[in-house]
Amino acid sequence: MRNIITISRQFGAGGSTIGQAVAERLGFYYCDKDMILKAALESGTLTPEEIRHYDERVPFQFGFGQSLFDFYNKPLDERLFNAQKEAIKKVAEKGNCVIVGRNANIILKEFDKTLHVFISGSEKARLKRMCEKMPDTPEEKVLEHLREVDRTRKKYCKYYTSTLFGHAPYYDLCLKSSSLGFDKCIDLICEAAKAE
Amino acid sequence: MRNIITISRQFGAGGSTIGQAVAERLGFYYCDKDMILKAALESGTLTPEEIRHYDERVPFQFGFGQSLFDFYNKPLDERLFNAQKEAIKKVAEKGNCVIVGRNANIILKEFDKTLHVFISGSEKARLKRMCEKMPDTPEEKVLEHLREVDRTRKKYCKYYTSTLFGHAPYYDLCLKSSSLGFDKCIDLICEAAKAE
Repeated sequence: MRNIITISRQFGAGGSTIGQAVAERLGFYYCDKDMILKAALESGTLTPEEIRHYDERVPFQFGFGQSLFDFYNKPLDERLFNAQKEAIKKVAEKGNCVIVGRNANIILKEFDKTLHVFISGSEKARLKRMCEKMPDTPEEKVLEHLREVDRTRKKYCKYYTSTLFGHAPYYDLCLKSSSLGFDKCIDLICEAAKAE
Repeated sequence: MRNIITISRQFGAGGSTIGQAVAERLGFYYCDKDMILKAALESGTLTPEEIRHYDERVPFQFGFGQSLFDFYNKPLDERLFNAQKEAIKKVAEKGNCVIVGRNANIILKEFDKTLHVFISGSEKARLKRMCEKMPDTPEEKVLEHLREVDRTRKKYCKYYTSTLFGHAPYYDLCLKSSSLGFDKCIDLICEAAKAE
């Protein structure tokens, strides 16, 4: 049984929704990028000035769209990346967790009993989903943002982990949510987690 | 239910073995690259001279290692690629099939009821498996060959389909056989095939 599940995902592919459902079904702790970032900022490895700086760039309280627009403008710097890495390892050491985002698959590559998952989706399906989540934003703006996030996650992954974002050999299981449906993705992850 | 299953795979990751088992369990027709190539050569779209030429380059009868060493030296040319494409479509039109290799996921991207699978494996596990299959070849020679095939499949895929070999968004389901085990991969493919 794998008791540390990481979920990397394309923007809008439903990684968080699927991850939460998996955590609930397996009785695991759920942890996403905002929680990791918060833990990193509170870890004491960054100075109060740095925290203020990141707090301004990543306003949790501003809600989903706003937070992401700011957050993905450019890769966060090494110090914050390292603080997040430590936060992820701390969560993983306790086991029984689902960790979404932050290239946790690479950060935890030496850990045992891991299941590294990647969730993709067609651009059309992801756009539709994000438009529903951001009803006040024009579709073309959402599409532009989606492509920008795609590019940034790729760059972030390459820069910090020297691996290719979404390249199958870096994950145990990759699922296309727009083809299989969310429920089937949840079933398959839970089934795969039973592997030795 | 998906009744056309394509399996792309890294060399040595067990794609054929897994594909055969899936076909058997679901009662589907199994079709691999040698069968596709044979159908392409027999399709009448190539001249007898061309067939003789390819027959010399791809000697089926010489067995596994030999055939692959010759086969992957360079991408086959466009005419043969197109003949193989037609052969793959012909198999798919009948449905209830598992097709291994030849970028069938891209060739059949307009088909309904498809499940496109990619099988990866760690280099270590793939090397071990290939060494068992080629007991008379020194390990370093097998490793060299494995890396050459990896490079060639990537190039072939890029050249003929303009897509990235092994990039998760091009497949519905990607599995790492060295992590999950062959039996779990077979189970997961059969389970995923039940998706609408």
